[in-house]
Amino acid sequence: MPVPVRFADSDLKTEVEEGATVLEAAARAGLWLPAPCGGEGTCGRCQVEIREGLEDNRLEGGDWEKVLACRKQIEGPLTVRIAPPLTGLLPLPPGPAVSDVMTSDFFPADPPLLIYRLRLTPPHADDKQSDLSRLRQALSRHNCLDLEIEASQLAQLPRRLRELEWQIQVTVMNGRLVDIVPLESPNPLALAVDLGTTSVWLELLDLSDGKILGGMAGPNLQQGEDVISRIIAANKPRGYEFQQKAAVASINQLLEPLLRALGRAGEEIKLVSLAGNTVMSHLLQGLNCRYLRLAPYVPAAENFPLMQAGQLGLAVCPHAPVMLMPAVSAYVGGDIVAGIMAAEMHQSEALTLFIDLGTNGEVALGNNQWMMAAAASAGPAFEGGGISMGMNFAPGAIIDFRLSRPEDEPVLTVLGGGRARGICGSGLLALLSHLLQTGILEPGGRLNQQRGAKRLREGEGGLEYVLQWGEDGHDDHDGHDGYGPVVVTEADIQNLLRAKGAMYAAYATLLGTVGLRFSDVEQIILAGSFGNSLNLEHAVTIGLLPELPVEKFRYVGNSSLSGARLAALSTGRICAAERVKAGITSLELAEQPLYMANYTAALFFPHTQAEELFPKTWRRLKNNFGG
Amino acid sequence: MPVPVRFADSDLKTEVEEGATVLEAAARAGLWLPAPCGGEGTCGRCQVEIREGLEDNRLEGGDWEKVLACRKQIEGPLTVRIAPPLTGLLPLPPGPAVSDVMTSDFFPADPPLLIYRLRLTPPHADDKQSDLSRLRQALSRHNCLDLEIEASQLAQLPRRLRELEWQIQVTVMNGRLVDIVPLESPNPLALAVDLGTTSVWLELLDLSDGKILGGMAGPNLQQGEDVISRIIAANKPRGYEFQQKAAVASINQLLEPLLRALGRAGEEIKLVSLAGNTVMSHLLQGLNCRYLRLAPYVPAAENFPLMQAGQLGLAVCPHAPVMLMPAVSAYVGGDIVAGIMAAEMHQSEALTLFIDLGTNGEVALGNNQWMMAAAASAGPAFEGGGISMGMNFAPGAIIDFRLSRPEDEPVLTVLGGGRARGICGSGLLALLSHLLQTGILEPGGRLNQQRGAKRLREGEGGLEYVLQWGEDGHDDHDGHDGYGPVVVTEADIQNLLRAKGAMYAAYATLLGTVGLRFSDVEQIILAGSFGNSLNLEHAVTIGLLPELPVEKFRYVGNSSLSGARLAALSTGRICAAERVKAGITSLELAEQPLYMANYTAALFFPHTQAEELFPKTWRRLKNNFGG
Repeated sequence: MPVPVRFADSDLKTEVEEGATVLEAAARAGLWLPAPCGGEGTCGRCQVEIREGLEDNRLEGGDWEKVLACRKQIEGPLTVRIAPPLTGLLPLPPGPAVSDVMTSDFFPADPPLLIYRLRLTPPHADDKQSDLSRLRQALSRHNCLDLEIEASQLAQLPRRLRELEWQIQVTVMNGRLVDIVPLESPNPLALAVDLGTTSVWLELLDLSDGKILGGMAGPNLQQGEDVISRIIAANKPRGYEFQQKAAVASINQLLEPLLRALGRAGEEIKLVSLAGNTVMSHLLQGLNCRYLRLAPYVPAAENFPLMQAGQLGLAVCPHAPVMLMPAVSAYVGGDIVAGIMAAEMHQSEALTLFIDLGTNGEVALGNNQWMMAAAASAGPAFEGGGISMGMNFAPGAIIDFRLSRPEDEPVLTVLGGGRARGICGSGLLALLSHLLQTGILEPGGRLNQQRGAKRLREGEGGLEYVLQWGEDGHDDHDGHDGYGPVVVTEADIQNLLRAKGAMYAAYATLLGTVGLRFSDVEQIILAGSFGNSLNLEHAVTIGLLPELPVEKFRYVGNSSLSGARLAALSTGRICAAERVKAGITSLELAEQPLYMANYTAALFFPHTQAEELFPKTWRRLKNNFGG
Repeated sequence: MPVPVRFADSDLKTEVEEGATVLEAAARAGLWLPAPCGGEGTCGRCQVEIREGLEDNRLEGGDWEKVLACRKQIEGPLTVRIAPPLTGLLPLPPGPAVSDVMTSDFFPADPPLLIYRLRLTPPHADDKQSDLSRLRQALSRHNCLDLEIEASQLAQLPRRLRELEWQIQVTVMNGRLVDIVPLESPNPLALAVDLGTTSVWLELLDLSDGKILGGMAGPNLQQGEDVISRIIAANKPRGYEFQQKAAVASINQLLEPLLRALGRAGEEIKLVSLAGNTVMSHLLQGLNCRYLRLAPYVPAAENFPLMQAGQLGLAVCPHAPVMLMPAVSAYVGGDIVAGIMAAEMHQSEALTLFIDLGTNGEVALGNNQWMMAAAASAGPAFEGGGISMGMNFAPGAIIDFRLSRPEDEPVLTVLGGGRARGICGSGLLALLSHLLQTGILEPGGRLNQQRGAKRLREGEGGLEYVLQWGEDGHDDHDGHDGYGPVVVTEADIQNLLRAKGAMYAAYATLLGTVGLRFSDVEQIILAGSFGNSLNLEHAVTIGLLPELPVEKFRYVGNSSLSGARLAALSTGRICAAERVKAGITSLELAEQPLYMANYTAALFFPHTQAEELFPKTWRRLKNNFGG
C-alpha cells in the first residue's frame, strides 16, 4: 500500500511503500537531506520534524516530533517539516576570485564546443534535400564535416528548423550536435564543477569569451562521510541510484540560485566539465565501484565516457555533453589531475610537492620529468566533517579565530557576520594554532585546564572549548539553528590530529620512497577550498604542512575547479590532462612500509620530531610545553 | 479516474483513463490490433468483443458485444476478447528461399560487426589498470583501437568481467562496444528486416558465417493503409509514439516464435539491419514526417543515425546497433536502395527497369551510368489491402486460381490447405487474369453476367465473384473466421485496376521523361513479396507489367530484405547502398505532365492501347471483347 507523505513549507508530495524511511521519501520528492553517516542514524544531520496525517492548512503551532529521517519508518500518512531549511550554499563572486590559476581574461583558440551561426536556404522545388543534409551542408562550409545527430534530436529537427525560420545558432562538440537555438540567442554557457567528497563547487562560464560569470559552493548530499563509506552506501539496495541522484541534486541545488542571480536559464548551458576523485567520478556515472576498495583496488575506468546531461538529470540543456577528468587510479583521481594541469606542475622543472587539502587529501610529487601521487584519505575533518559543530565554508561559519593569552576572550570572524552556526576548515586551523600557541592545547591533542582559559568547560563527552556561548542561557548542545553555542571538543581535536597526521605522512612517504627530503622540495603548490585563502602560518604551526621557506609555497585555491574550467574552454587543456594522467605513477600508501611509521610520528602537534622538522615553530612553542 | 481493462484468453490487464478507446487500451497492454484506417472506424479490422466488468473466471458462454476497438470508448471496468486471435504470421524456410539474390553460402570478409574472443589477465598487485583499460588493451592487440563504451555499459563492466572470470566474447561495431558474453557462447546473430507498409519480413542470420537460420513474415500493425494515412495518423496526439511502438511490435511478434523455433534468445541478436520506405524509416525512428507530405516534400534525413535496439524496444540485445538503409527522397526509400544494391542493378551495363510491387510501388530505371526512381503509390491492393477479403501471403490465403471456361467450377490453391480465409496478391493476379481470359471480367473492370459464370452473384454492393461458398448455408459476409464465403467484388476490382494503372503509369512516365520506350529496356528486375514466385503471364495479361520477352524478366523476391541482410554482413555493401542512394535522381510523378495521361490510359485491362503495347495478349483476349 503506497502511503502519502507531504513536505511542509513546500508543495512537495510523494507516495512511498509502508516501511520506507523518511529519508527515502524525501529523496523521492527531490529533497536531498544530508546523511554523511550513510543512513546509520549516527550523524544526526538528517533530523526533521514530523506529524501524523496530511496537513493541508498552514502549519503554525501544534506538536511536531523530532526524528532522524534515516531511521524513521513510515507507517501511515505523514507530514514532514525540514527545519532549519537546507543551508550551506555559498555564492562566489564572478571573476578569478575562486582561484588564482588563470584569470578570466584567458580565452584559448581551441574550445571543445564550437558555435556556428547559420542562415540556411529553405527547401524549394529545385532543392528537396532533407533537413539533415541541409544542415550538414551548411556546417561543412565551416569545416564541420559529417555532423552526427541522435535519433531523438533528428525527430525534432524538421519542426525546429521551420519554427526558427532556418536562422539558427548551432553548438557542436566532437562532431556531434548539441543543440539548435535561435540565431540571436545569447552566448552559450559552460558549467565547470568540482565534485568534492564533502563540498561541491561550480562556476558558470561564457563559452564565447571564457569569462567566469559567477560561482557557487555547497555540500555534497551523498550518503557517507568519506569515499569508503560512500562506496559502502552505494552497495546497499538501490544505493548506486541514490548516490548518483544525490550528486546530481547537489549540483542542481547550487545551479538554480546561481542562474537566477545571473538571469540565465539552465537550457543555455551547453557543456558541463567536471572534476572529482575516482570514487566521485564513478558514483556520478553510476559505475560499479565495489572493486575500488577491494585489493588490488581497480577502477572500472580511468577515462570516462562522455555522457549527456539529460541522462544524468542535470538541469541544463539535455544534450549538453558532460566531460569528466580522467583518473590515475582508485584513489588518485581526476581532481588532482585537473589541479596539476591547471597549476601547470607538469611543465615545471622545479621539484614540486602538490597538496590538495580535501577530504580525499591527494598529494603529488615530481616535475616535468616524472610524477607520483597518492591519496592520504585524511577524512573530512578540515572541511568540517566529523567535527561536532563543523560545517563547510558558508555563511554563518567561523572562518578565523584569534587568541593572544589563554585567559583572553577570543576574537571570532563569522562569514557574513552575525552569530555563528558552526566552524569551517580555516576557522579550525586558526583555532588549533592559537590554542597550541597559548598552551591550551597540548602537542598530544589534549586540552589543558591549567592555563586559566575561561572558555574551557566539561561537556557531555569530556573537555570542550566554547567559541560562542548560547544566547539567553541556552547553553546546551542543540545548536545548528544559528543561536546555540559553538564548541570544539577533545574528540574533534583527535579527529583533526589524525587528519593532519595522515596528510603529513603522505608527503613524507612520497619523498621517502624516492629518497628525497623536504629540503629538496623547490615548490609547494597548495590546493583546496579553504575559502579564498589558506593561513600558511597556522597550517605549519599545527604540522599540517611542512616547515619550509614561505616563498616556496603557492596557494592556488580550488585547482580541481580551475582544471574543470580550463577543460571546458580548451581542447589543448583536455589533452594536457590526459598527458598528466598518463605520466603519474600511483602509490598505494597503505602498501608502503614507511607509511605507518610516518603516520604515527605525525600524530603530534606539530610533530614528534618537532625539533628537527619544525625548528622555528618548536622554538615558539617549546616554552609552553617545557621542551 | 483510471479504469481497469482485462483481456480474456491472456493474462493481460491494464488501466486507462475514462474515455480512452479499446484500441488504446490494447496498445497499452502490448496487444497491437490492426487498424489500417487509422482509427477512423471505417475498415472494421479492429473488431473485438467486450463485456462490462472484470471477469476472473473462465470466459465460456455469456453475452459478448461486438464493437470496433478504435471507436469504443471505455466508461467503466471492461473485459475484452480478441477473436479470432491475431493471425497472419508466416514462417519462412531457412536458406535462400526468401529471395534468389545471394545464396546463404555468401559470406563476405568485411562484416560491420566484429567478434573477438579474449582471455584477459586478471588484475593483480603489479597491474592495477582499470577494467576498461584492460579490455581496450586486449582489443588493441586485434587492431580494435580506442573502444568506445557507454556509461551504462561501463557501469556493469567490473561485475561482468569478474562473473565471466575474464574469459569473454566481445562484439564491437564502428569501434563501439555492443556486448560482452561468455567466451564459449554460440555465434552471435543478426536480424535483417524489411519493414514494409503492409507486411514485415524478417530473417535471422548467423553472424559468423552469414547463414540464414530462418525467417518470418506478418502484418505491419501501424495505423493507416498507405504511407499518407500513416503520416496523418502519426500527427494525431501521441501518434508518433503509437506508430513507432506498432512498428516495433510488428517485428517483435514475428521474432518471438522464430527464436522459439530455432531455440535461440533475443539477447543473442547483436545487430539489426532494416530496410523500409522513407515513411517507414521515419516512423520507426519517431522522426517528424509532417513535411514528407507537404510540398516540396522534404524528409528529416536521408541517412538515419544508428540507434540502439533497446531504445526502440526491440526484443534483442539492448545495445545492438540498428542500421537503417538510406533513403533517396520523401517517396523513394531505403527499400528500393536496398533492392537495387542487392540485385546489383547499379553494376549492370544493361538498361534496367526495377519494379518493386509493394504498397508504395517504387520503380527505378537506369544502369551503371545513371539511375532515376519514383514511387507509384499504388496502394496495398496487390498485398490484399483495401480488398474486402484480401489478406497477406499467410496460411489460409488463396494463392492461385484457375478457370478454363466461364461456366466451370474454379480450382483454388489455399496456402496450408483446407478452406480459405481470404485471398492474397498472387491469388488476385491469377483471378483477374483468368476472369479476363474467360470474358467474365471486362477490360473496363466490370463483371459480365452474360458469360454463364455460375459463381457470379449480386452482393450487397453490386456484382461479386464467389471463390468459396460458405459452409452450412452460411453465405453472408461475416467471413474472416475461416469458414465463411470468400468473394471478390466489382469495387475490389476497381481498386486493383487503379493500383495496376498507377504502376504501369510509373514505368511509362520514367521512360517518357528520358525519351525511351519499353522496347529499349534490356532487363526488368521484379521485386516484391508475392510469396516465392510471381506469375509473369498473369501480371502481363492484366497489364500490371509491360509485355516484353519473358527472358528479359528476372524475379528477385523480397530484395529489400536481401539488401538488409547483405548490409548486416558486409561493410562494402553498406557503402554500396550509400553509392546507390547518391546516384539516384528522384522523380515526383505527380509533378510530371506525362503522368496523368499515362495513368488514365492504363485504367483498362490490359491497357487502352492494348493492340500496340500488349499485342500478343490482346490477340488472346480480343475474341472475348470483339476487339
